[in-house]
Amino acid sequence: MSKSVDLNADMGESFGPWTMGDDAALLDIISSANIACGFHAGDPDVMAATMTRAITCGTGIGSHPGFADLQGFGRRNMKLSEANLKNLVRYQLGASRGMAAALGGKVRHLKLHGALANMCSVDGDMARACYEAALEVDPEIIIMVLAATAMEDVVRDLGCNWAGEIFADRAYNDDATLVDRSIPGAVIHDPAVAGPRILQMVQEGAIITESGKRIPTSIDTICLHGDTPTAVALAGSVRDSLTAGGIDIAQFTERRG
Amino acid sequence: MSKSVDLNADMGESFGPWTMGDDAALLDIISSANIACGFHAGDPDVMAATMTRAITCGTGIGSHPGFADLQGFGRRNMKLSEANLKNLVRYQLGASRGMAAALGGKVRHLKLHGALANMCSVDGDMARACYEAALEVDPEIIIMVLAATAMEDVVRDLGCNWAGEIFADRAYNDDATLVDRSIPGAVIHDPAVAGPRILQMVQEGAIITESGKRIPTSIDTICLHGDTPTAVALAGSVRDSLTAGGIDIAQFTERRG
Amino acid sequence: MSKSVDLNADMGESFGPWTMGDDAALLDIISSANIACGFHAGDPDVMAATMTRAITCGTGIGSHPGFADLQGFGRRNMKLSEANLKNLVRYQLGASRGMAAALGGKVRHLKLHGALANMCSVDGDMARACYEAALEVDPEIIIMVLAATAMEDVVRDLGCNWAGEIFADRAYNDDATLVDRSIPGAVIHDPAVAGPRILQMVQEGAIITESGKRIPTSIDTICLHGDTPTAVALAGSVRDSLTAGGIDIAQFTERRG
Amino acid sequence: MSKSVDLNADMGESFGPWTMGDDAALLDIISSANIACGFHAGDPDVMAATMTRAITCGTGIGSHPGFADLQGFGRRNMKLSEANLKNLVRYQLGASRGMAAALGGKVRHLKLHGALANMCSVDGDMARACYEAALEVDPEIIIMVLAATAMEDVVRDLGCNWAGEIFADRAYNDDATLVDRSIPGAVIHDPAVAGPRILQMVQEGAIITESGKRIPTSIDTICLHGDTPTAVALAGSVRDSLTAGGIDIAQFTERRG
Repeated sequence: MSKSVDLNADMGESFGPWTMGDDAALLDIISSANIACGFHAGDPDVMAATMTRAITCGTGIGSHPGFADLQGFGRRNMKLSEANLKNLVRYQLGASRGMAAALGGKVRHLKLHGALANMCSVDGDMARACYEAALEVDPEIIIMVLAATAMEDVVRDLGCNWAGEIFADRAYNDDATLVDRSIPGAVIHDPAVAGPRILQMVQEGAIITESGKRIPTSIDTICLHGDTPTAVALAGSVRDSLTAGGIDIAQFTERRG
Repeated sequence: MSKSVDLNADMGESFGPWTMGDDAALLDIISSANIACGFHAGDPDVMAATMTRAITCGTGIGSHPGFADLQGFGRRNMKLSEANLKNLVRYQLGASRGMAAALGGKVRHLKLHGALANMCSVDGDMARACYEAALEVDPEIIIMVLAATAMEDVVRDLGCNWAGEIFADRAYNDDATLVDRSIPGAVIHDPAVAGPRILQMVQEGAIITESGKRIPTSIDTICLHGDTPTAVALAGSVRDSLTAGGIDIAQFTERRG
Repeated sequence: MSKSVDLNADMGESFGPWTMGDDAALLDIISSANIACGFHAGDPDVMAATMTRAITCGTGIGSHPGFADLQGFGRRNMKLSEANLKNLVRYQLGASRGMAAALGGKVRHLKLHGALANMCSVDGDMARACYEAALEVDPEIIIMVLAATAMEDVVRDLGCNWAGEIFADRAYNDDATLVDRSIPGAVIHDPAVAGPRILQMVQEGAIITESGKRIPTSIDTICLHGDTPTAVALAGSVRDSLTAGGIDIAQFTERRG
Repeated sequence: MSKSVDLNADMGESFGPWTMGDDAALLDIISSANIACGFHAGDPDVMAATMTRAITCGTGIGSHPGFADLQGFGRRNMKLSEANLKNLVRYQLGASRGMAAALGGKVRHLKLHGALANMCSVDGDMARACYEAALEVDPEIIIMVLAATAMEDVVRDLGCNWAGEIFADRAYNDDATLVDRSIPGAVIHDPAVAGPRILQMVQEGAIITESGKRIPTSIDTICLHGDTPTAVALAGSVRDSLTAGGIDIAQFTERRG
């Protein structure tokens, strides 16, 4: 049996007259797209255009909710009540599903964005509120979580469909957290490094940390970034290394519970 | 067989710290609630609270999309392309449906708000774009239209589920348009006048204009306003007159095509 | 020489179609108005109407900047960089000054709003960034600070014009911080209690804490709230007690450095 | 005496994480910058960065207010009352002036943006409302108007400081209106064409229409666009043609009345 892995990237992060990222180029590389819902980026027209392209390419569509903070791109921490969080997710996931349905597509997964994701990766209560809200809207939705974080604990406990994710361009500490961006080497910019490194992690089924430690985990999907100058080159390198190593690129199959 | 009619009102038009209308009082009177979707009013928390109340009361839930204009409350005309309009409606209806599903309810109807509704009542192409978008999201949704306007022509042509609406507090011209608000008598403020007047229209199945002309039309629901000082008194009068006249108040049954 | 004190309240916190507070009633009571700048509340039309009323009443006009968070009414903590903070204050104070100038008035003071104020009362660096930004726009502006907090330390160090404020309706701890709202008695709702209590503080020139401790401080202005049901009654009681006690109500004179 | 003309361009139209235009390249070419005020584009941080660059380059700073429509980039017509319009301009000009003052600069001129400008160029009442509002904030501000339109009539009537503008990249009809964008040749994309054409207009002191007709008018400044692929090349060509033709590039001197 051949092994496969999913490649995901954030998409549809343009807004009104402003464009962001090279969605068209990335769509040739990835198998799942996390599409912004209009709160941190995206607007109804951008969502429609992005979903239309994803449907044409056969890319899996994900809802990508974030904080209501356009100016900060959803990257500034906000302290919301549990009720606020739940309604934020219900609303944005609903909007994604309405748009996808109108275009003949379907929202397959949900991935939290930016500061909302970062906060949930270390705060299980926040993650639970968001994920419960999503499952109330669609009990079958696949929750994409940062592998080996509080997010994964929550989806295992909820017993829902989920998929585990690692980053293509970030170095890891020995406790599976990301190396702080302020430390040299925290972000991998070199396509020649990124591809082979990810292939090895997928083959071993483990996060390989800076110290060389192996953290066995569920690597269902690799997160590629689309908003840096080298993004497309790095994404292509990851894809090429994986396929050269005998790993198929395909939409993830959900884990259950 | 007894005759029945629906009473509808706009709800969930608070925003953040600001409240509007007396939703609790109106919910005892109406049978269908048009709930704002966050573009002209409402926010995810207000939507959730309003839908929860409507579900408890057995009130029919409607999605009430409007222009993205909080400051203008969706009452300022905006010129959007057909694609803009469709995406605006898809997004807002999707958000309503997501929220309702999460709360154990269901969006039964769609009614356009404010300037968007006014423009569509005289511009069949705009109405068609909005209604097609809604039907793409949910082919069974019931479209609430201003009776005897371009809106009604469009839903008849689309062959979709719909319901015809008249206003409880507005005077009509002989061509079924509303008397301009600048003309004395255009808006009916007196509860003692409003109730009997609407009972007569429902009994005759016709709009009765200022000149006394009868325009036979489909009166499935009566629009009550919630944002004026006399709103609740006027709404109560309409309900009392109708029930005294042997008309039941009940959620509308959709017409088809 | 007779003693005088200023009474201030937040105003102009309506937004678009939504009203908040009873500005007209409060204007008869207060001597200084903190007018929202459109980020947490207010919009250009509300600002214009509120400033026009304040000018007519001879009330001192203050700029009242807050976080860009309408839905949260500027009451949710946001983590901004120092540059963000400075530009936020420069922009909002500029807008206030432009509007006031157009209406023949003048912005006399600046008071931070909500979460921005709370954060600055315990974080001198944040307070300094905000106040420096304000002084860059207008070196003569009077900064209103919570008496005996980090804010006061900053304005003393900056050597700028300032005025010290206490709350009419909040209980104090022995370190001059406010009793947490979750503790019974933290908020004073009874007009009969509020008035005499404030008179005593003004007469003694000290905050009187829950334990009875006196914290001598600069009481130039008393903050009245406008957005609670008993707001106007409580404000009236404070004014009446002060005038009965021989204290004049008048716009504060700035302290320097 | 040598002749001179001003070159202006819209700037500071980035927003939050989204960038627009090549402001740095254009700043080497132009003499006046129209800087967005946060309603149609720009935010306090973008304004600060843009003004700082303009001050460093010695470029004249203009306030560039537009409709409150980020998603539509202020290019969608909105119907506002005269009071709305005035407050919109007062607020945005005030914000510009506050920011400029904080940075050690000064707002020298005002130019309306997008749909607001287009509507005012054919509706003198709208133009008058906007310009009166600006002059209430700063009686000495220089109003930049589209030459030979209703805008020019208004500033002449107001007797205020003003400057007349023509477009570097748009063809003109015989009544001085712009050739509709849907007609071939309406927009000039070729730098080799644009430069000599504008030199001729400046030398003749007249708009030269598509038919060759001369409309004598006040050409104080040439509008360059910054948001197209060929923008910088076209701007450079215009500057080079003018200087080669003996025309100096310099901030405009205001006309009076």
